[in-house]
Amino acid sequence: MPGNFIYSNRDHKFILKEWLDTEKILNFDKFKDTYAMDDVDMILDEGLKVAREVVAPTNIDGDRIGARLEDGKVITPPSFHKLYQFMQENGYGNSQFDPEEEGKLPTVLLTALEEFFNAANPAFYPYIGLAKGATNLIELFGTEEDRKRFLPRMYSGQWSGTMCLTEPCCGSDVGEITTRAYPTEDPRVYKIKGTKCFITAGDHDLTENIIHLLLARCEGAAPGTKGISLFIVPKIWVNEDGSLGEPNDITTLAIEHKMGIKGSATAMLSFGDEGKCRGILLGNPPDENGKGEGMAQMFVMMNGARQSTGLTAMAIAQAAYNHALQYARERIQGRTISNPRGPRVRIIEHEDIRRMLLFQKSIIEASRAMIMKNSYYRDLATYSNDPEERKTALRRIEVNTPLIKAYPSDMAWQTIAEAIQIHGGYGFTEEYPVAQCARDSKILSIWEGTNFIQSLDLVGRKWRLDEGKIFAEWFKDVADSVESNKNIPGFEREYEIMNKAVSTYREMRETFTSRFARNIRLMPLYSTRVLHATAILWGGSLLMDQAAVATKKMQELGENHYDYPFYQGKVQTARFYIRNIVPEIFKIAEIIRDGDTSAIDILEEGL
Amino acid sequence: MPGNFIYSNRDHKFILKEWLDTEKILNFDKFKDTYAMDDVDMILDEGLKVAREVVAPTNIDGDRIGARLEDGKVITPPSFHKLYQFMQENGYGNSQFDPEEEGKLPTVLLTALEEFFNAANPAFYPYIGLAKGATNLIELFGTEEDRKRFLPRMYSGQWSGTMCLTEPCCGSDVGEITTRAYPTEDPRVYKIKGTKCFITAGDHDLTENIIHLLLARCEGAAPGTKGISLFIVPKIWVNEDGSLGEPNDITTLAIEHKMGIKGSATAMLSFGDEGKCRGILLGNPPDENGKGEGMAQMFVMMNGARQSTGLTAMAIAQAAYNHALQYARERIQGRTISNPRGPRVRIIEHEDIRRMLLFQKSIIEASRAMIMKNSYYRDLATYSNDPEERKTALRRIEVNTPLIKAYPSDMAWQTIAEAIQIHGGYGFTEEYPVAQCARDSKILSIWEGTNFIQSLDLVGRKWRLDEGKIFAEWFKDVADSVESNKNIPGFEREYEIMNKAVSTYREMRETFTSRFARNIRLMPLYSTRVLHATAILWGGSLLMDQAAVATKKMQELGENHYDYPFYQGKVQTARFYIRNIVPEIFKIAEIIRDGDTSAIDILEEGL
Repeated sequence: MPGNFIYSNRDHKFILKEWLDTEKILNFDKFKDTYAMDDVDMILDEGLKVAREVVAPTNIDGDRIGARLEDGKVITPPSFHKLYQFMQENGYGNSQFDPEEEGKLPTVLLTALEEFFNAANPAFYPYIGLAKGATNLIELFGTEEDRKRFLPRMYSGQWSGTMCLTEPCCGSDVGEITTRAYPTEDPRVYKIKGTKCFITAGDHDLTENIIHLLLARCEGAAPGTKGISLFIVPKIWVNEDGSLGEPNDITTLAIEHKMGIKGSATAMLSFGDEGKCRGILLGNPPDENGKGEGMAQMFVMMNGARQSTGLTAMAIAQAAYNHALQYARERIQGRTISNPRGPRVRIIEHEDIRRMLLFQKSIIEASRAMIMKNSYYRDLATYSNDPEERKTALRRIEVNTPLIKAYPSDMAWQTIAEAIQIHGGYGFTEEYPVAQCARDSKILSIWEGTNFIQSLDLVGRKWRLDEGKIFAEWFKDVADSVESNKNIPGFEREYEIMNKAVSTYREMRETFTSRFARNIRLMPLYSTRVLHATAILWGGSLLMDQAAVATKKMQELGENHYDYPFYQGKVQTARFYIRNIVPEIFKIAEIIRDGDTSAIDILEEGL
Repeated sequence: MPGNFIYSNRDHKFILKEWLDTEKILNFDKFKDTYAMDDVDMILDEGLKVAREVVAPTNIDGDRIGARLEDGKVITPPSFHKLYQFMQENGYGNSQFDPEEEGKLPTVLLTALEEFFNAANPAFYPYIGLAKGATNLIELFGTEEDRKRFLPRMYSGQWSGTMCLTEPCCGSDVGEITTRAYPTEDPRVYKIKGTKCFITAGDHDLTENIIHLLLARCEGAAPGTKGISLFIVPKIWVNEDGSLGEPNDITTLAIEHKMGIKGSATAMLSFGDEGKCRGILLGNPPDENGKGEGMAQMFVMMNGARQSTGLTAMAIAQAAYNHALQYARERIQGRTISNPRGPRVRIIEHEDIRRMLLFQKSIIEASRAMIMKNSYYRDLATYSNDPEERKTALRRIEVNTPLIKAYPSDMAWQTIAEAIQIHGGYGFTEEYPVAQCARDSKILSIWEGTNFIQSLDLVGRKWRLDEGKIFAEWFKDVADSVESNKNIPGFEREYEIMNKAVSTYREMRETFTSRFARNIRLMPLYSTRVLHATAILWGGSLLMDQAAVATKKMQELGENHYDYPFYQGKVQTARFYIRNIVPEIFKIAEIIRDGDTSAIDILEEGL
């Protein structure tokens, strides 16, 4: 049964056709001659079909065969090769990252497809996805020459990309990296020396070349993150005309044996063992103060990766939910509590099973609402003709990014546990696919900046940007949205709770800010919980907004319409989230008001 | 690094020597000539040494080699054989289950040792542990002849035991089993026909025989759980004199490929393929109404297994915590937030790491407090000379059992996630032991009655037993304990919260009971959360009680004493739990007061 893939795009169609103003995006110059609203269904259907028929069948190979290191080379499962080829040839590969590509999809649509592909095989998609950030960096910061040299074959999928940040000494602590870059006679070319680890798709046999985007410190540059520069380091040297040269001096030392996404090679790479590794500086050398451009450049890539991480978590959680739902619909066990002498029933009729299903569904749909809303802002930020609109969108994305990275990736572990629980003993076996979902998902709270790093980004940085105005605007959006949905019929209690959540959050933020102004240590002590409260508030407001649309639609369609249950489900999902998940905000606020410091006060020897 | 085992028995010494009145247990007739308080340290130290030096080194074999089915036989890893032998020969095996055994330990001490062994290799200990319930059933319900025939070789460890309940058609729904028992000429001997699945230690090569305790329905017995009987079904027939006969007609059809505890064989067994499988009825045949004794008998075993399940969850969570703590003490990353230009520090100095550590530690120690307190009651129930005391103890155990099964096994998944998180990317690799901890732990919320079944047991059964008096007494104990700890210096706020938790719980229970009297479906919809609230309340009260002892000890010892940090740690742990975990009770109470029914109301097609 693993390999078997159950997925629906119904919620995506709702989001794109009834909730978000996708038409506005499709009317931008970039898309107006290519896509129309009528295409949305077809794109989602085709994408889902590819996920089901082409991507999903490789999922089991990823898990059972995995990526292996043999004679210093990484071998991916045979089925990954055909799949990679298919994706590149059919417009689902790197060409989507090419700004000039005619068939390029708006972000909202590509996000939906990426969700399907990640759900179908979360170990495969990174081989494509990593090229997104790498090409984007070269587009933004490379010279005309760099772009000509590298991008055509990256966009064609002939070459893939990576981001090489982490070293054994330093993950979160990226300012401490020890990889060095030494100038050569050619002012653009540097000798690279160092070791990088946890490099996703860092080595593999799917493409003829791999273009590493690598952080290193130029000799003499400033310490810390300030002195870092970014380099293009191809696995096989690329001549100025774009043709392949000699293999670069890069050794694959090891790949990690991981609990999940085993088909995705996580490599440890050594650069310059023989002193011959060459890289091309991206942008300018460090200035007279030793300040490089690398961190700022890398953040462009990192922010994209953070948004993708939450997406992957949500996709895996949705896949697990779908399996649990199907199992619950088929498995017969017990009788109903209202009629204990009645016939045996399918477990979906049991209240606790339904609670576990709605727990998953509501968290997944809150996550999807956040992620899709953010993708919508990405389209505005990139394609709108109105500079004010572009600016506003960028400001929203600043706040959204840590939320959509951390919340879905923290919650996936919990929702997938319920998907396993619904399967009973079978959920613990690898014969059913949910155990793999749990295993695959666990990295997502860690990579691309741990979820704690995300919480610091929110509280320590995003709250303060532009003197707090960026967050104030974001928060006003949420509060206004709740207020605008004051009169959804049947949602009086839900409004009450959301309204209380808005004011509780506001007070909590004031308490918290004034507290940590006096004791900075309170900030990291509580920031993870603050991030969760923030995400839940936002998620609740978005689901409430969706419930407004769905309620109206229910009234229009009437109970007997075949599509009525979908809308009724949306409304009940929003209700469940607001009444069962949103109260977490009140708990967090109470805990923060209480201000316990035991975790700081406990003696280390007492831990 | 897997295989490496870090564990301490400091908390166990505190519990047994300073918190619980273990001396009272040791003064009971059964123990007074064998054990004294002076022996407690030695027993705990020796047990931990065995866990570390003998058990733990086999853990990696369990996970990497696992149990395999070859030619219809289950092969366990070679190292398990030597280990099994060692445990049996050194008083850590089945002899502990023999009521006549001179060296038999009180339950409180055996519980501590079982924690160490399960932490050291959770896939191994079931090969011993399952004999506990099986022998106990034969002791209690077997004839004199049965006891002579089976028990000596079971207590010696030559034979192991199982419990065979589940069938492919029915896990939670045990009343539906289809395995049948047909009378033979010998009134005690029945022909058995059926298939059982998910049988832990159901087949293996560690012992010369396996004694299955199997649920089946006698021909003509009543339907449902009522008509079930229990049979002793040996893998190899046992003659009346206890010698081995012919192999019984039992086939090992398969073993499960599981995400964790891979060394523990989970077998699917077919009984009577050739119509020759023989079993011996335990107790009496079904009465004239077709009512068998099987379910009541099996519950004796099941209750023991439920208590062990929570223990195993807590043990694995503790092992994961210990690894995370060691990693946090050694890993250098980042600078402190108070001194961002200072030197790089070990991550244990970071506030969020400490929060994650105390989250784990406080939940684990609350779990241990509950489990050890319950074991204390088990000793009173078994060994006290005072019938009133025995009765009271049994009444407490009724309420405790579902709590200590479900709470630790639900929470282990969450605490181990934090242990992984602390390891960063390394936590996701199988080079470090925490990923395995997560994988191993997931079955515990499922087997021996899913955690939902536990919650129904609490709310539907234990709350009502003896007209509610049993629960009322239990609750009074908790409330009295909180009240008696009103004046712990420095714990004023903690008392306030616990006091509020007691009254909130009382109101919640009233609301809930009156609600579900009107709509029974609310009971299963909310029972899981009610169970959590109940366990957290109890856990908070027990940690508070421990904090009272520790506070006094801190005052006695003074800050410079080498053991001061342990007691300070106990106090801070209790504080963390009460101020960060106990507020979950208020959230649950609020959600129940709200009484949302969306999970019932949502249309199935909308899920």
